Amino acid sequence: MKLTKKRSQKAGLPPGALVHIGEKKVEQVKIRILDYNETHFEEKEVKIIEECFPFKDTPTVTWINIDGIHDVEIIEKLGIHFGMHPLLLEDILNTEQRPKMEDLGDYIFIVLKMIYPDDQKNEIEAEQISLILGPNFVISFQEREGDVFDPVRDRIRKAKGRIRKAGSDYLAYVLLDVIVDNYFLVLENVGETIEDTEQQLTINPKPETLQYIRGLKNEMIFLRKSVWPLRELINSLERCESIIIHESTGAYLRDVYDHTIQIIDTVESYRDMISGMLDIYLSSISNKMNEVMKVLTIFASIFIPLTFIAGLYGMNFEFMPELEWRWAYFALLGFMLLIGITLVIYFKRKRWL
Amino acid sequence: MKLTKKRSQKAGLPPGALVHIGEKKVEQVKIRILDYNETHFEEKEVKIIEECFPFKDTPTVTWINIDGIHDVEIIEKLGIHFGMHPLLLEDILNTEQRPKMEDLGDYIFIVLKMIYPDDQKNEIEAEQISLILGPNFVISFQEREGDVFDPVRDRIRKAKGRIRKAGSDYLAYVLLDVIVDNYFLVLENVGETIEDTEQQLTINPKPETLQYIRGLKNEMIFLRKSVWPLRELINSLERCESIIIHESTGAYLRDVYDHTIQIIDTVESYRDMISGMLDIYLSSISNKMNEVMKVLTIFASIFIPLTFIAGLYGMNFEFMPELEWRWAYFALLGFMLLIGITLVIYFKRKRWL
Amino acid sequence: MKLTKKRSQKAGLPPGALVHIGEKKVEQVKIRILDYNETHFEEKEVKIIEECFPFKDTPTVTWINIDGIHDVEIIEKLGIHFGMHPLLLEDILNTEQRPKMEDLGDYIFIVLKMIYPDDQKNEIEAEQISLILGPNFVISFQEREGDVFDPVRDRIRKAKGRIRKAGSDYLAYVLLDVIVDNYFLVLENVGETIEDTEQQLTINPKPETLQYIRGLKNEMIFLRKSVWPLRELINSLERCESIIIHESTGAYLRDVYDHTIQIIDTVESYRDMISGMLDIYLSSISNKMNEVMKVLTIFASIFIPLTFIAGLYGMNFEFMPELEWRWAYFALLGFMLLIGITLVIYFKRKRWL
Amino acid sequence: MKLTKKRSQKAGLPPGALVHIGEKKVEQVKIRILDYNETHFEEKEVKIIEECFPFKDTPTVTWINIDGIHDVEIIEKLGIHFGMHPLLLEDILNTEQRPKMEDLGDYIFIVLKMIYPDDQKNEIEAEQISLILGPNFVISFQEREGDVFDPVRDRIRKAKGRIRKAGSDYLAYVLLDVIVDNYFLVLENVGETIEDTEQQLTINPKPETLQYIRGLKNEMIFLRKSVWPLRELINSLERCESIIIHESTGAYLRDVYDHTIQIIDTVESYRDMISGMLDIYLSSISNKMNEVMKVLTIFASIFIPLTFIAGLYGMNFEFMPELEWRWAYFALLGFMLLIGITLVIYFKRKRWL
Amino acid sequence: MKLTKKRSQKAGLPPGALVHIGEKKVEQVKIRILDYNETHFEEKEVKIIEECFPFKDTPTVTWINIDGIHDVEIIEKLGIHFGMHPLLLEDILNTEQRPKMEDLGDYIFIVLKMIYPDDQKNEIEAEQISLILGPNFVISFQEREGDVFDPVRDRIRKAKGRIRKAGSDYLAYVLLDVIVDNYFLVLENVGETIEDTEQQLTINPKPETLQYIRGLKNEMIFLRKSVWPLRELINSLERCESIIIHESTGAYLRDVYDHTIQIIDTVESYRDMISGMLDIYLSSISNKMNEVMKVLTIFASIFIPLTFIAGLYGMNFEFMPELEWRWAYFALLGFMLLIGITLVIYFKRKRWL
Repeated sequence: MKLTKKRSQKAGLPPGALVHIGEKKVEQVKIRILDYNETHFEEKEVKIIEECFPFKDTPTVTWINIDGIHDVEIIEKLGIHFGMHPLLLEDILNTEQRPKMEDLGDYIFIVLKMIYPDDQKNEIEAEQISLILGPNFVISFQEREGDVFDPVRDRIRKAKGRIRKAGSDYLAYVLLDVIVDNYFLVLENVGETIEDTEQQLTINPKPETLQYIRGLKNEMIFLRKSVWPLRELINSLERCESIIIHESTGAYLRDVYDHTIQIIDTVESYRDMISGMLDIYLSSISNKMNEVMKVLTIFASIFIPLTFIAGLYGMNFEFMPELEWRWAYFALLGFMLLIGITLVIYFKRKRWL
Repeated sequence: MKLTKKRSQKAGLPPGALVHIGEKKVEQVKIRILDYNETHFEEKEVKIIEECFPFKDTPTVTWINIDGIHDVEIIEKLGIHFGMHPLLLEDILNTEQRPKMEDLGDYIFIVLKMIYPDDQKNEIEAEQISLILGPNFVISFQEREGDVFDPVRDRIRKAKGRIRKAGSDYLAYVLLDVIVDNYFLVLENVGETIEDTEQQLTINPKPETLQYIRGLKNEMIFLRKSVWPLRELINSLERCESIIIHESTGAYLRDVYDHTIQIIDTVESYRDMISGMLDIYLSSISNKMNEVMKVLTIFASIFIPLTFIAGLYGMNFEFMPELEWRWAYFALLGFMLLIGITLVIYFKRKRWL
Repeated sequence: MKLTKKRSQKAGLPPGALVHIGEKKVEQVKIRILDYNETHFEEKEVKIIEECFPFKDTPTVTWINIDGIHDVEIIEKLGIHFGMHPLLLEDILNTEQRPKMEDLGDYIFIVLKMIYPDDQKNEIEAEQISLILGPNFVISFQEREGDVFDPVRDRIRKAKGRIRKAGSDYLAYVLLDVIVDNYFLVLENVGETIEDTEQQLTINPKPETLQYIRGLKNEMIFLRKSVWPLRELINSLERCESIIIHESTGAYLRDVYDHTIQIIDTVESYRDMISGMLDIYLSSISNKMNEVMKVLTIFASIFIPLTFIAGLYGMNFEFMPELEWRWAYFALLGFMLLIGITLVIYFKRKRWL
Repeated sequence: MKLTKKRSQKAGLPPGALVHIGEKKVEQVKIRILDYNETHFEEKEVKIIEECFPFKDTPTVTWINIDGIHDVEIIEKLGIHFGMHPLLLEDILNTEQRPKMEDLGDYIFIVLKMIYPDDQKNEIEAEQISLILGPNFVISFQEREGDVFDPVRDRIRKAKGRIRKAGSDYLAYVLLDVIVDNYFLVLENVGETIEDTEQQLTINPKPETLQYIRGLKNEMIFLRKSVWPLRELINSLERCESIIIHESTGAYLRDVYDHTIQIIDTVESYRDMISGMLDIYLSSISNKMNEVMKVLTIFASIFIPLTFIAGLYGMNFEFMPELEWRWAYFALLGFMLLIGITLVIYFKRKRWL
Repeated sequence: MKLTKKRSQKAGLPPGALVHIGEKKVEQVKIRILDYNETHFEEKEVKIIEECFPFKDTPTVTWINIDGIHDVEIIEKLGIHFGMHPLLLEDILNTEQRPKMEDLGDYIFIVLKMIYPDDQKNEIEAEQISLILGPNFVISFQEREGDVFDPVRDRIRKAKGRIRKAGSDYLAYVLLDVIVDNYFLVLENVGETIEDTEQQLTINPKPETLQYIRGLKNEMIFLRKSVWPLRELINSLERCESIIIHESTGAYLRDVYDHTIQIIDTVESYRDMISGMLDIYLSSISNKMNEVMKVLTIFASIFIPLTFIAGLYGMNFEFMPELEWRWAYFALLGFMLLIGITLVIYFKRKRWL
């Protein structure tokens, strides 16, 4: 997860200048159209953006899904035909956008982050999704081709649930719901990592554990940064008085809103837990050092006095009467044993042994 | 206490799809009905959910208690007969729900967590309780059969207090009150553990103490996460202008609200205390290490110079005049004693002894 | 200061059930009545609660003071005669109450904590005081007989200040003022302990210092928990539009309110100071350990190489030419001295000496 | 900076009782009067307070400055003549007051702290200033004679700036401005100390550095406690709708308000910096200990094995063939050198050397 | 980045006195004028301020840019001609100003900080920019000549984008946008430093790393202090109902506002990350010390007992039977090896090796 993208390349350009900021994640822009109502269903993939234009004014609900946002020209054409504000197009192209929603009268603009775990790198990946919700169409922009929206397509195709009977606002809600559900998936992964790390912390803390904790902490900072504005976004969506959003969709949006609150609660709890883990780690390290020190101290304290005594009788003075005594050597050995035992008892009393 | 349940199994399903999320805690769903007013009382256990339906329209207060929520079909039938929104049924089935209340006009939906200490595992257990409060009925959903509501049943049977004279809203209040009272019980337990751990910290901090503190901390994070929304819930209940809640019940709800505030105060105080304990633990460990170091330093510093001197006179040079002196050995012994005493005095001055 | 009282004994009882929660602090309930206006004054101690009842409807101001709240029957009789809500009586009996005020139309109910230093145990003691303020009476409930209200009685007897001219609301204000003034007394004590401990921390930090700091921290948590709701209480009292509180009393209540703000400021400052003290303590311990380590390192580093050299010439090889040289011994002594001096200079450079 | 003054001496006294709380900082109360308008100027020092009374009703602006507030009688006489509330006089006498402003209709009462660095004790000193702002007079109370207001007097004398043309509200503003400017002076001092201490921390952290940091931390706690209410005070002054404050003075008050916000920003930034310094200090100490440990370990690890080998050949066994070999001694010396060099290389690899 | 500038030199001066506070960053004040509308364009550099005056009342948009604010006289003349409040001129001259905006009816005053990285000193530099936005002019004050506004000039010259068609409010917006964009640039730099430092922390933490972290922390404190008021400023600008700001500019200001929110989010995330880094650093240091201690303990614990045994047989007692045994020496060597191997296995078991 790179901290910053090269936004600076835009500094100095006039506002509304269309520049793609972010990685290019797919080669070819892919445009898919789903057009449906209760009785009618049509699905096709088009090569040139102009083919989407006729769908703007049909009474059926149209979902235009665009995978890949690096091709500025396509976005621009679409923008002109659908009458979008240049600043809005700029926002779609800039993948560094803060999640937000804007009610622009004729349509509602929503930009947010979809997150999913990257299993290879053991990290959280984020992708920017922009939605334009008009009275009878939804245009969605993804950075790359993905399969998160596939179940939604399937539901439309097979006319499962309310979706074919409802309008474009319900479609937008379903897309939001899928995105928010993905957060739970990521949080489950994180929760498991936290439990593993806590166990490791208890049994055998290692320097790598520190790396895990640091990684978790940064992930939480990232999640927090993207989930608080998400909550705001959905709240304003629920409260906005646009005619595009029908009253019946309100209950569904409230449900997604509850989910975001729950995500925030979980993120905050995890943050607390992780920040506690670092203190525990530090304490464990101190404990271990204490143990090391005790071993050293016990060894040194027992043998250093004994070595001194041995050294004493290794001196070469001519007049050392003890040296000639018959049992001196064995008496000394006994004395040394006594010192050793005394010290061991002393350390046992101190609970160091 | 598992951090997360497999909510992810729901990702991709259309909203309103009924799936039970959580552990299955009882084998058999148990349905109990209490029907009463000031003069009438009837209690029975039914096998099939359809037997509850006639009670919907009786003028008496009916309490339908359902233990076990894994049987989707039962919930669904009940939902259809009582005219509940599909999203609401979804919430009842999902045990990962955030405490909340929703006023849906004809009835009020309340979902919250009941907590109780699990004595075997020395942990806090949580169970999700959902209440549906209609004009003359209360439907309660529990994850497992429990005995917390038994005193309430008893009060109804024996017509103790106001309960038989009052409506369904008073019954809902009584159930909430019992649930909130359980929080105090858990907090008392936690309070005792805190006092024990503090004492242990003072007398003899051990690595296990760290585990206790960590456990307490996580419990507090969990309690906090469930008690703040509880407060909100009861506050909105008190303030909601539903005709289902009579004015006379307001004072009682305010009382429960005061209790939740007190629970929050206690939880926050405990959090502060526990976070202080970790610092105290770290300081104690440092203190102990300091003591270990002092013992090592005293032993080493006294005997290392003496050993050096002994080694000096153990050298085999041919010309070492001292070796031949008559009292050299005893003089040296005296000198060594002097060094030892000097160092002991020095360490006493430094207050290391 | 026990963390929790056995509130759990109440779990399951119907709301409004009167049970005394807390310690029984006096043997005998003591009931004292003061009845006065500008010209009239009467004081008596009664044995049975019924003797208070006639004072309810006199035009003079009546202050009924009850020491000891464990006798449920007395409270109940009083409650019935003065027309109090059962939940309110429950609150008076439960000494675990959160400070609050409730405007019940005919009277105002106030419950708060009085704190005072317990000199024997070097702790803060808390006692719950409940006040019922009617149009022409004040009923006060104390857990034990105390002398805090004696100056007020004296002022009434001797008609000092405004008190005899003013109504029951002014009497309630005076009692609140006395209670709030006691907080300053406790804070003064705490302030002195903080100053002592900081000095100790500077001169000679000891493991006991840690205990002091922990004690102070917990006291601050307790004070904070009781002073924030106190502030709220007095604020609502000042703002409540009850006819019982005359406008002229407003300025006095604002004055008490300012005092509570000041108490909160002081408590928060003390918290900050105390939490800083722990960091300082930890740093001091680290400093001390550093010093111990330096002594050990200096001793060991100087004598270990010298001992090695001495050991070298204590070897018994047959062919060691140096051993036969005339001045070898003295040269070696000189060389050893040189090594020692070099190392001392090295450690001086490192500022370890 | 004493933490608390003996406020407790007041406990039990009736409200409005006039007692001076705080140190007596001057012997003699000094009363100075400045009376001026655009054309007229009069300045005198009076001995008895009654001489001020005639100025109350003159149309000119009168500034009565009183240095020393321990003489309760003077304050009381003034209070009676100018018609002040007894609680207000109590506030003037109590130097433990929290900064606040009160609009009492006929006049506005302001109490705040002036702070200045005490160069001798290297501490921040605080003095309480009370202002009473009437339609055509300002009465200021200082604890001691000071020179902060001298430039203001000078400006009045020499008719510099707007001051002689404006009313009493502008005079009050100018006094507030001078007091607030003094905060910047103190903050500049603190800023310099922070920079010095940070540098010391980098180059050579010493136990005394810890004392500095602790001192800075406590100073910030004190500043914070007095500057937040100051902000509130000036905000309410700006917003109050008293006729005493003319609209043209509003812009000036907004300017002072901006200054207090800036002071708060700076105090908060300094707090952050100082709290970071403690962590840095702790890390530095750990670093230093690490270094000490490395020196010890290197010395001990190199010489302990060598000493052992030397000791081996110092044994007196009769059959030790090596002892008789011709080049054994030199071979051993070489072997020892090899061990030493190997260990040095090992420690170099570990980057301990 | 100096913490404080000598603001104290102003203490005592009457409000509105014009004194330049801050460093003098350029020798010569440089005045540049751009005058344009859709068809007309004029650019010139003038020597004396009076040459700007005629542009005040032209219908075209005029941008007067002044580099260098130390020349009080120029500012004063400009102020008089354009009818500015003296307190406002004071604010322009005082480079210690807090970012703010003030709507003064005829014109809007904006003061804020421009930040850019100082590559030589590896620090963040700040410069104060003041803008005066009138109905048809913008006056900008910079502390030094810079090239940040060059692209804007270029856009005007070449009539790129909307700028030549729009009014003075759009020009002001463009200048703000450029300044805010610069914050992203600085944050990118900081982000890179954070990533570098985190990597260093993982691989090889050094005392210098601590310095980096401290530097980053202080930079974040500084950024935070300047970016929060920036957000407020732009928010009030967007919401102000001045006729100077046309409705069409609102969308642009909202865009800048979103950018400031994003900057704040990033700053707060970075703060969290940096504060986590210090804990990681401390843990790493502890880990390293642990490792050092283990090496010492292993060496000492293995060789100290062996040295003692060797010393034992170096004693000179006459009666030590072992000394005469034939294979005693070799047996002892074997025994020593055994002890050594046993200890190595013991340490391996403890995972110290």
